[in-house]
Amino acid sequence: MTTPSTALLTDRYELTMLQATLRNGTAQRRSVFELFARRLSGGRRYGVVAGVGRALDALAEFRFGEDELAWLREAEVVDDATLDWLADYQFTGSIWGYPDGEVYFPHSPVMIVEGTFAESVVLETLLLSVLNHDAAIATAASRMITAAGDRPCIEMGSRRTHEAAAVAAARAAYIAGFAATSNLEAGRTFGIPTTGTSAHSFTLLHDTEREAFEAQVRSLGPGTTLLVDTYDIPEAIRTAVDLAGDELGGVRLDSGDLVSLARTVRQQLDELGAEQTRITVTSDLDEYAIAALAVAPVDGYGVGTSLVTGSGVPTSGFVYKLVSRADDDGRMVSVAKRSQDKVSVGGRKYALRRLGPNGRAQAEVIGVDGTPVHDENDRSLLVELVRDGKRIHHESLEDSRARLRSSLAELPASARQLSKSDPVLETVYEENAS
Amino acid sequence: MTTPSTALLTDRYELTMLQATLRNGTAQRRSVFELFARRLSGGRRYGVVAGVGRALDALAEFRFGEDELAWLREAEVVDDATLDWLADYQFTGSIWGYPDGEVYFPHSPVMIVEGTFAESVVLETLLLSVLNHDAAIATAASRMITAAGDRPCIEMGSRRTHEAAAVAAARAAYIAGFAATSNLEAGRTFGIPTTGTSAHSFTLLHDTEREAFEAQVRSLGPGTTLLVDTYDIPEAIRTAVDLAGDELGGVRLDSGDLVSLARTVRQQLDELGAEQTRITVTSDLDEYAIAALAVAPVDGYGVGTSLVTGSGVPTSGFVYKLVSRADDDGRMVSVAKRSQDKVSVGGRKYALRRLGPNGRAQAEVIGVDGTPVHDENDRSLLVELVRDGKRIHHESLEDSRARLRSSLAELPASARQLSKSDPVLETVYEENAS
Repeated sequence: MTTPSTALLTDRYELTMLQATLRNGTAQRRSVFELFARRLSGGRRYGVVAGVGRALDALAEFRFGEDELAWLREAEVVDDATLDWLADYQFTGSIWGYPDGEVYFPHSPVMIVEGTFAESVVLETLLLSVLNHDAAIATAASRMITAAGDRPCIEMGSRRTHEAAAVAAARAAYIAGFAATSNLEAGRTFGIPTTGTSAHSFTLLHDTEREAFEAQVRSLGPGTTLLVDTYDIPEAIRTAVDLAGDELGGVRLDSGDLVSLARTVRQQLDELGAEQTRITVTSDLDEYAIAALAVAPVDGYGVGTSLVTGSGVPTSGFVYKLVSRADDDGRMVSVAKRSQDKVSVGGRKYALRRLGPNGRAQAEVIGVDGTPVHDENDRSLLVELVRDGKRIHHESLEDSRARLRSSLAELPASARQLSKSDPVLETVYEENAS
Repeated sequence: MTTPSTALLTDRYELTMLQATLRNGTAQRRSVFELFARRLSGGRRYGVVAGVGRALDALAEFRFGEDELAWLREAEVVDDATLDWLADYQFTGSIWGYPDGEVYFPHSPVMIVEGTFAESVVLETLLLSVLNHDAAIATAASRMITAAGDRPCIEMGSRRTHEAAAVAAARAAYIAGFAATSNLEAGRTFGIPTTGTSAHSFTLLHDTEREAFEAQVRSLGPGTTLLVDTYDIPEAIRTAVDLAGDELGGVRLDSGDLVSLARTVRQQLDELGAEQTRITVTSDLDEYAIAALAVAPVDGYGVGTSLVTGSGVPTSGFVYKLVSRADDDGRMVSVAKRSQDKVSVGGRKYALRRLGPNGRAQAEVIGVDGTPVHDENDRSLLVELVRDGKRIHHESLEDSRARLRSSLAELPASARQLSKSDPVLETVYEENAS
């Protein structure tokens, strides 16, 4: 099976800029592009990198095949010389970046693409799309995980977002610590555990709730989770325990005042002897609702809409800027736009997290054109993703999950607060980079 | 080239419900599912349907091939009998709905799926994903088009959203009246006009701004649009007109106080004789910023982030509910969940827009189990999309665009206001449906 080309997931101006630079020879100038966020939107205290693995997968499929070239010719997007160049396209440069699960702050150089201008400029949209989406989801998801404490969160927002974005959202949520997803394609593509209960339609299909529960228990065993709020919850609980006994796996509540409801349901379950039966709640949860449920006897959270829409911050604000390029003599020159409201800093960046002797993070330190001065406590943040066109970074989602856990553990405790704030680490530019 | 299967863009519970109903025979009960929104989020005055064409495309690829079945078996999602059933899956029912470009209101029956429970329940996630995303974008886009008046809007938000969602967003924006997109894949897939200017990186790549402009004009002709805010805007304008003369197509402003900037730039262009040169602005625009720019001499808007994220409402809130199903005797029974905070109304719906003699819309009228009483002014809203498994609805995006224009023209004038409000039409259930 051929994987579809990702080459046209690209803004037209990248190819017309390419054409203009192929004509005047600047296309071949060595260039450094940097992907970073100027700020953390929504008063987030930290950001979570996600999408790097997907971006590298997408890069491998960034090729202009016959179909892509034919359409570009027909639509008169670029001239024949540019089409010829695109036909041979293969990224031959290098990419460094923050790996999936690392936390980031304003101006963290989350990804650095080094190559010719031509081969690097055409990746702008694809890299930004992947990271802007996935990091927004992972950042929101991480806040939910923090709010949930030891209770598992299930990602179930597929229906609230674009069908392909849903699969990526499941991946980002898993990196952030979600236990499972409802999305089957995410299970197939990324090996994420999948799970599910049943819908109100299933109960309504049957003549009685009892028949619906019977069918589910017979099909999936008593360990299944029954949805108990279609009609009358106390009656549904009685029916559920009557059918599945104290082996009943769980009940799901999808409406109402969940804090008081969970208490009532817990009490009823215990009285019926179903003390091991778990209570999962799923109604329009976000990190704040999850935090409010901490006092309730809830065993797990199913999160949908707010997760896949980034809980108010659906995109990360990453931009992709040229920060350095060669001149005619091949010397690298730092460059930056001179605009008052959109600050960037030129030069190739290096990054480390400054850690105190107790292992606690103190600052995000950026070196320009050299590694910042550091001691043995500090942690280097950029990893090599692609070297001379060859992908050298592969890691499992379990590795990314572990990274986020340890990166979060380094941050000041205030990182775990949900209220809006400045980032918990300050980003500082190290003057004496060496 | 094989189009990838969409069958696993599905929540796991759909397949486990399927398994339970195949075992007890309820899988074959005739069912009616309805896709609707309980409310218009974000104080929107109307919603715009989009995604119907994409949903029907996706339905055609909803098949469980060898790869999908192998994974479901390996992951132990469902039993062998269910896998056998899925292997033969083909939707054989009927679908009615509001077509792309129609406006909708709370409880409008935007899509109605009629078939067996089994064949209909498995479409829940796919249909919701497509419509929840696309309609959110189209609804936001329509507000921007209203704010822009006669000035064209260009969709350029690909980099701010998931790479595949970007393509769908371009389609939704085009339905809503956007003139073009920056996204090449949207050009190829949907035939939407593509356009673009250039990035700051292009200017920064060159030793001088003049060299960059020269390269662009030489490559794309004087009719191109030059990005003039990398360094000093007045100087850039002088250089641009010097190079391209009064044939200079346009200049783009991507930062700063756009209202005053546009005035200064317009004056300078006019003084230089470039009276035909257009001014395009593109910096973090949303419908409110566009409205504020109405007084400025701007010729077009490029809209990114706020468009592809639904300008504060990234998802439409559509749900997919069983509203009617057969009993053992084959009689259809209306069903609805009895939950206080999530109201639904059972029964198969019919819908029309009640129009006054002046052609002005007065209400969204829903009939339950029959067409509402109506006169010759009223307009029926549901069109047949799929009949007995066969798609019978095909229309061009131009048709969808035209529908939205005429549907909006019917609405009360207050629909064009941007402030938060109740929906401009009330949804009423017609008791005397016949």
